[in-house]
Amino acid sequence: MPSWNEGKTKHAIVDFVERVTSHSGADFVAPSQRIAVFDNDGCLWAEQPMYFQLAFAMDRIRALAAQHPEWMTKEPFASLLEGDVEAALAGGQHAVAEIVAVSHSGMTTDEFQRSVREWARIARHPTLKRRYVELVYQPMLELLRYLRASGFKTFIVTGGGVEFVRTLAEDIYGIPPEQVVGSVGKQQFEIRGSQPVLVKLPAVDFVDDKAGKPIGIQRFIGRRPIAAFGNSDGDLEMLKWTAAGPGAALALLVHHNDAQREWAYDRQSQVGRLDKALDEARANGWAVARMKEDWNTVFVDPKRHVG
Amino acid sequence: MPSWNEGKTKHAIVDFVERVTSHSGADFVAPSQRIAVFDNDGCLWAEQPMYFQLAFAMDRIRALAAQHPEWMTKEPFASLLEGDVEAALAGGQHAVAEIVAVSHSGMTTDEFQRSVREWARIARHPTLKRRYVELVYQPMLELLRYLRASGFKTFIVTGGGVEFVRTLAEDIYGIPPEQVVGSVGKQQFEIRGSQPVLVKLPAVDFVDDKAGKPIGIQRFIGRRPIAAFGNSDGDLEMLKWTAAGPGAALALLVHHNDAQREWAYDRQSQVGRLDKALDEARANGWAVARMKEDWNTVFVDPKRHVG
Repeated sequence: MPSWNEGKTKHAIVDFVERVTSHSGADFVAPSQRIAVFDNDGCLWAEQPMYFQLAFAMDRIRALAAQHPEWMTKEPFASLLEGDVEAALAGGQHAVAEIVAVSHSGMTTDEFQRSVREWARIARHPTLKRRYVELVYQPMLELLRYLRASGFKTFIVTGGGVEFVRTLAEDIYGIPPEQVVGSVGKQQFEIRGSQPVLVKLPAVDFVDDKAGKPIGIQRFIGRRPIAAFGNSDGDLEMLKWTAAGPGAALALLVHHNDAQREWAYDRQSQVGRLDKALDEARANGWAVARMKEDWNTVFVDPKRHVG
Repeated sequence: MPSWNEGKTKHAIVDFVERVTSHSGADFVAPSQRIAVFDNDGCLWAEQPMYFQLAFAMDRIRALAAQHPEWMTKEPFASLLEGDVEAALAGGQHAVAEIVAVSHSGMTTDEFQRSVREWARIARHPTLKRRYVELVYQPMLELLRYLRASGFKTFIVTGGGVEFVRTLAEDIYGIPPEQVVGSVGKQQFEIRGSQPVLVKLPAVDFVDDKAGKPIGIQRFIGRRPIAAFGNSDGDLEMLKWTAAGPGAALALLVHHNDAQREWAYDRQSQVGRLDKALDEARANGWAVARMKEDWNTVFVDPKRHVG
């Protein structure tokens, strides 16, 4: 893991992996039980100034606007199309839900995946100017590879939409769709002409965040992880559930404290708030990866990464 | 696959596998896309005279009866405890729901798994006198192994409860928990003392049957299978979804036509009804494994199988 500086955090990771993979040791864990779970937003890729999936949803509204003249006079679409994101989001959860519903439903799963792929190919982050799929953390990619090389099965457990993340995760993280746990929208099975299709409906079925994360892990994976990686209070229950397992366990938080190379935010942030989980990490001796001190590289080199 | 007789059905399986694994052929499928899904009841193990999970639920009621004197005067428990299963089930879906709720909820996921393991270790089928976990079809075990050896990832997609099937699937089929899709009950995350637990609630969240099967596949696996195996009308939508994929696909039904070695049932059966799906199989040229003609062995040899 060349992008990790030598120090307490890297040592905690390597020490854990060596303990659970050492056949002769008391902490040995059989390969089938080596389940590692990663939050996505703010843990594997960046999440500022807004979750990338929300950026996708907004871009999708812009792309569809020509077919929806009624949006010009209807909020939150009108403000969004005028370029005033803040006004569009002033409606809070309701506005976000409308933007997500319009961009994430009323189409088949195949059509949705195509729209995500098309967006990922061209969309760029507003300030960093890179493609979103290039805002992946190089140290976390190395950690994923290190764990897999040590017999771990790596999963994403995200509050984001499972279909959105699955469409991208195999290319950017080497994590196949069946190893992505996330929030789930309702779907309907239909026969169109003679072809069966799955249609995405504008209703949320399961929110994989906070206490939803251990529930999602149990529901999709069916066994308790021995390693969990997060960066916000939304990951707290997942870290607790993992740390409380019967054998050796690793719980790690990424702490965004690097305003120069990325962002510095924690207890007061609207996106990715890290407050209670930071206190718990200190109280329980969980590992904390401080971006500024622990990582000598932040983002993947886009020339070397396909995305 | 020594337990499969030479003939059309075995040939259809082998021909399909050779086509999708042949690098030079037009039907080649990359290993990551080789997803095979199997129904469980009546496809991987038997399902007569009642789903084994219902037998587990009833045995569980009997085991808990001493702690519940009130059951002696309350249906469906009273009839069940008197040994009159038919009277207990006379209440239909409501009676079944009560029996399942009591036996499948109000405990932690760890406690539930222990109760399933304990039951599987000792419970025996009423007429075949073997342990339920020994009523696994030997030809299907060979098929699972053959597919895995050919680079497939094998999944169970069952109408049964996902926690029940996961507890047994790794030992009896070599299928890990994270590759079992099934019906899902609601759960709650709690801190008891200082320990986090997941508590099973008496409410069904998702029914993985009929149109629920392709939805469950999309939700848990996130990509369309290229091979699907079922035995009843509950599998019809899963077979259609699989068969309609863009490349080569295999859809297969197990037809229980062997009253001597197992059971013979199809269009009129209350358990595992095979009616519409049999017509669709004929209309679409899907493979049909006729137990009597296609299998020279039905059940696994318990001496050679751990369970």
